[in-house]
Amino acid sequence: MIAVVKNTATPEQIAHFVGWIESKGLKTDISRGDNTTIIGLVGDTTLIDPYLIEGMDIVERVQRVSEPFKKANRKFHPHDTVIDCGRGVLVGAGHFQVIAGPCSVEGESLIRIAREVKAAGATMLRGGAYKPRTSPYSYQGMGTEGLDLLCEARAELDMPVVTEIMDPRDVGAFLDRKIEVWQIGARNSQNFPLLKEVGKTDAVILLKRGIAGTIDELLMAAEYVMSEGNPNVIVCERGIRSFETRTRNTFDLNAVPVLHDLTHLPVCADPSHATGHTRYVGPMALAATAAGADCLEIEVHDDPKHAWSDGAQALTPAQFADTMTRVAKVREAIMMEVE
Amino acid sequence: MIAVVKNTATPEQIAHFVGWIESKGLKTDISRGDNTTIIGLVGDTTLIDPYLIEGMDIVERVQRVSEPFKKANRKFHPHDTVIDCGRGVLVGAGHFQVIAGPCSVEGESLIRIAREVKAAGATMLRGGAYKPRTSPYSYQGMGTEGLDLLCEARAELDMPVVTEIMDPRDVGAFLDRKIEVWQIGARNSQNFPLLKEVGKTDAVILLKRGIAGTIDELLMAAEYVMSEGNPNVIVCERGIRSFETRTRNTFDLNAVPVLHDLTHLPVCADPSHATGHTRYVGPMALAATAAGADCLEIEVHDDPKHAWSDGAQALTPAQFADTMTRVAKVREAIMMEVE
Amino acid sequence: MIAVVKNTATPEQIAHFVGWIESKGLKTDISRGDNTTIIGLVGDTTLIDPYLIEGMDIVERVQRVSEPFKKANRKFHPHDTVIDCGRGVLVGAGHFQVIAGPCSVEGESLIRIAREVKAAGATMLRGGAYKPRTSPYSYQGMGTEGLDLLCEARAELDMPVVTEIMDPRDVGAFLDRKIEVWQIGARNSQNFPLLKEVGKTDAVILLKRGIAGTIDELLMAAEYVMSEGNPNVIVCERGIRSFETRTRNTFDLNAVPVLHDLTHLPVCADPSHATGHTRYVGPMALAATAAGADCLEIEVHDDPKHAWSDGAQALTPAQFADTMTRVAKVREAIMMEVE
Amino acid sequence: MIAVVKNTATPEQIAHFVGWIESKGLKTDISRGDNTTIIGLVGDTTLIDPYLIEGMDIVERVQRVSEPFKKANRKFHPHDTVIDCGRGVLVGAGHFQVIAGPCSVEGESLIRIAREVKAAGATMLRGGAYKPRTSPYSYQGMGTEGLDLLCEARAELDMPVVTEIMDPRDVGAFLDRKIEVWQIGARNSQNFPLLKEVGKTDAVILLKRGIAGTIDELLMAAEYVMSEGNPNVIVCERGIRSFETRTRNTFDLNAVPVLHDLTHLPVCADPSHATGHTRYVGPMALAATAAGADCLEIEVHDDPKHAWSDGAQALTPAQFADTMTRVAKVREAIMMEVE
Repeated sequence: MIAVVKNTATPEQIAHFVGWIESKGLKTDISRGDNTTIIGLVGDTTLIDPYLIEGMDIVERVQRVSEPFKKANRKFHPHDTVIDCGRGVLVGAGHFQVIAGPCSVEGESLIRIAREVKAAGATMLRGGAYKPRTSPYSYQGMGTEGLDLLCEARAELDMPVVTEIMDPRDVGAFLDRKIEVWQIGARNSQNFPLLKEVGKTDAVILLKRGIAGTIDELLMAAEYVMSEGNPNVIVCERGIRSFETRTRNTFDLNAVPVLHDLTHLPVCADPSHATGHTRYVGPMALAATAAGADCLEIEVHDDPKHAWSDGAQALTPAQFADTMTRVAKVREAIMMEVE
Repeated sequence: MIAVVKNTATPEQIAHFVGWIESKGLKTDISRGDNTTIIGLVGDTTLIDPYLIEGMDIVERVQRVSEPFKKANRKFHPHDTVIDCGRGVLVGAGHFQVIAGPCSVEGESLIRIAREVKAAGATMLRGGAYKPRTSPYSYQGMGTEGLDLLCEARAELDMPVVTEIMDPRDVGAFLDRKIEVWQIGARNSQNFPLLKEVGKTDAVILLKRGIAGTIDELLMAAEYVMSEGNPNVIVCERGIRSFETRTRNTFDLNAVPVLHDLTHLPVCADPSHATGHTRYVGPMALAATAAGADCLEIEVHDDPKHAWSDGAQALTPAQFADTMTRVAKVREAIMMEVE
Repeated sequence: MIAVVKNTATPEQIAHFVGWIESKGLKTDISRGDNTTIIGLVGDTTLIDPYLIEGMDIVERVQRVSEPFKKANRKFHPHDTVIDCGRGVLVGAGHFQVIAGPCSVEGESLIRIAREVKAAGATMLRGGAYKPRTSPYSYQGMGTEGLDLLCEARAELDMPVVTEIMDPRDVGAFLDRKIEVWQIGARNSQNFPLLKEVGKTDAVILLKRGIAGTIDELLMAAEYVMSEGNPNVIVCERGIRSFETRTRNTFDLNAVPVLHDLTHLPVCADPSHATGHTRYVGPMALAATAAGADCLEIEVHDDPKHAWSDGAQALTPAQFADTMTRVAKVREAIMMEVE
Repeated sequence: MIAVVKNTATPEQIAHFVGWIESKGLKTDISRGDNTTIIGLVGDTTLIDPYLIEGMDIVERVQRVSEPFKKANRKFHPHDTVIDCGRGVLVGAGHFQVIAGPCSVEGESLIRIAREVKAAGATMLRGGAYKPRTSPYSYQGMGTEGLDLLCEARAELDMPVVTEIMDPRDVGAFLDRKIEVWQIGARNSQNFPLLKEVGKTDAVILLKRGIAGTIDELLMAAEYVMSEGNPNVIVCERGIRSFETRTRNTFDLNAVPVLHDLTHLPVCADPSHATGHTRYVGPMALAATAAGADCLEIEVHDDPKHAWSDGAQALTPAQFADTMTRVAKVREAIMMEVE
């Protein structure tokens, strides 16, 4: 962390500031320019709040030069982490998986869709039992009944299941049913009580980037989970909010290689929410794969126009199968040896 | 709501679509242009998910033409709502109030700061006992002990208190202490389990706009609270995220008159978070007042550089007093009769 | 276009408004709901300014339902356009090309780099002779001397050249040298005098999306060129501005399939500017290809750290060659027949 | 400027990098932390391209710590600049002015509106003769005929005139007519040939912030004008693009105090474009004044629904007069002495 000092600061003020910093167990380095003096803070600055320092009279600006995340940081864990999602399904470090299924669990359509996505090559089954909806008047999900339907499908098809948790009070219901992958949705990416609570379990946490979340904030959310003791985190790009309105979100695929740079955790991408329109999901699933995602999450429905939520962005099983074939080919392009 | 139909749609497909819509209890109106056919959906479209319709084969695009919020909508409640925050403090419909105090409750500094802000004209006292922090390594708040300190200050100074609730499991602690104003922070603006839970109480809910929340989403969050039975909602602009990095957030003061247009609920503005720098808080408090805010929330600390959080954006009591004097003058400008 | 009418409008006001619209040669359709009346404007609404109508007393809101672009619109030209860039190089409708070369023309390094990119499979040569730079103190380009160096490289290698035009007064210099592809940069995407001027030529115009330009604005910029008589436009996604700071821009690859949906013009993508960092260019070139781009533009430099501009985002010739091999494989994935 | 060095860099590499920096006439300071080494670049770094350094192998990240603008920078010119717009109208350093008039010059309505705005207290007259329009099919302005009408109004009312220049080839027409204030619109905020051309005159340049322009980019645009020799620049906040769609733009009023902090140039604000809706212009004009703007630019039309452009955001003369009365009162609030 560096502090840019105002050019009106007196030597006494600077000495006082330096003393205060050093009292926190950090060292300092001072660089004096003609118009600017910079004080470098050397040591574990993850414990320092930059806004606190920026509040000091003599400080003009504070900039982090090292990342505030530790457990998620590739610098301290150079090798890719492999996450075991159960039933032999691994993600990361070359292990590539596709999660597919309906947006919401709606009843018996689940098992029908599950069979289709498995046949096309999906290795994990998704389905929402608790649905975060912008309007209180929209369908809110089947709750525990939906979780039970997922468990039935899991038993028949031997696939780990992925479903969203929104409320820290639902942790018991998820643990009871041994749900393998707990999704934290974009709206809860800074719901810190929820992140801490799931951090106390050893479930796999599929952590979606916030609607206006930076890449760093996504990694800080991962840090919340990991700092409670749960290392099993997959981070997921699912589109961010921009000024563009032709798509539901702006799919920030740059985040995929950037995340691989910054963290050892596996990176998932969700082209369904990132586009919001069926006709763009296929191409963007390929693009996410080409960008280097370790995992895709894709919504599939066999009757999208009667789906209870997000029918507009679901692929049909046939479209999904076509996409899977092409995805496999794109994986070859990025995995091949080029001399 | 209108549905723009693809120009490849056959008359049979359109008839089928119309039949389906009407089976939902809505009426339809069809307008045929040379290149575009538009079907208007007439009736209570708040119950219809636009994405569902957009998923239909023949539909090119869906646009809402009426707002999806009802209880918060000025169209159905034309007069400004006055919210009673207790101890005689009213907000809205010409009642203007200022909430002030430290970012976090830190101990005995609270009562000292509280006395100062009251002397300068603040009518409600703020202080965070539970702090949402981007980093798990940052200070997380005093918890119930902080709530108790707020209650002590309230007893001495006879001011309602304002403090943030982050976890639905804390509702009991807030009810027990009769906290008057429960703040829902920007990061929880779409934490639906929390919104529903506070909607079951009759506390005043100070609802902050999400970091990337649209004005409509803020009003849908209000709708979540109100649809559970609690009409006591104040909505608050506190800065949104944009590409500009010179300030912590971009203060969208346009939202103040827009909100007055769309809703009967009182509108608060928070220049402290919206700027993130002490030196901009004063001018922007005046600007928020001039834009027509019914309420301001301002962070004040008597020793900002030792504050446990957000010292960078706190006013000193003297700066706060200066701002209050000018705010009163700006209020005159907007309240005066001009023939 | 539809106009949502305020529920306070009287029948007389509505009749007056309808009369006014019809006097403009349009027809109207009226749909009355309980709370909202919608008037549909039927006919060629590209000539109507929506803001003008929104200024009317009785109008609450105006929404376009058909696109304001015509010549660029796929609805009126369903088949993909193929653009002939000269020397046998075609773009669009299955013809895929890669433009490569240094950010700036810097002297004799140009021909050296040109030979390398051609050997690796690039089919067009880029190099900036006029450089738009945020700072007046940064290097501004070689001007006509740079154009001449491009022409020399073109003569040796038989590749069309691509270079940026910033000033309508430079059209003559470009015409004199028969520059094949004139790039309009992101900062000039709404420089209407420039767009009109290049629209009077028959050069190929490579039109970059604005830094905060919507997809629709990009197509309106194309419309400016085309409405002056020049149909030879390639549109290019090059990253937009968002709140994310880990990359120079946010690469909106969703725009690739969306543009294919909306327009018949070929779509280019520029992973160099869209990421700003060498290490992300390769993966994002693959991602852009997978998303369906007809053309890539990639910066290559054989000594990036001594490049005069944008060295940070240039690939070396070896990195470029590796990328080209993988790009070819990704093309197979999207072109293959899947039964 | 600081360069964060990768922790894989060898001492030899660092020594080589330092040598290269020093060969550019800068000094360096090295601060070694446990995980991060920082090299400070001391001297005139405005001449260094940060992207160039970021391209070096051993460099992880580069951050500016001092602003890249010089002539516009308050650090080197601590006192507010006063700009003389002619006919005794001064802006800045306590001199507050209001520019008003129609969006476009449309004919004889100009003089009628001009008389009204002058009567209400406006001190400069605006009117567009060249109109940047998103669509080539929209009205493009009267051109030199419009300039002549402005000159006639100026002669009658003795007010300086403000009008937009879009094309460097129009400089002669502006000089011939002694137009006092040349507006550079948001879309041309990085049209560098235009900025350089107007920088060669001594006209007052009213420089609007780009649609997605940062505050720093606005000041760099000012630097372009000033570095050519023209010191007469007023910078103007007019709304930026965000995800919010309820208003035409997001009025970033934080920019007003931030600009006062960073530059000695006067700061204007344009509530008409920043909101896009008549009903929000009044409150936001007050808010801009309260935030500390030195100048307002407001669109006024006596028959907004027949205006040729932007009727939706024009005040009527009566609304403008009401706003002017309140603005004067708000000015008192910010100018008053508070002990």
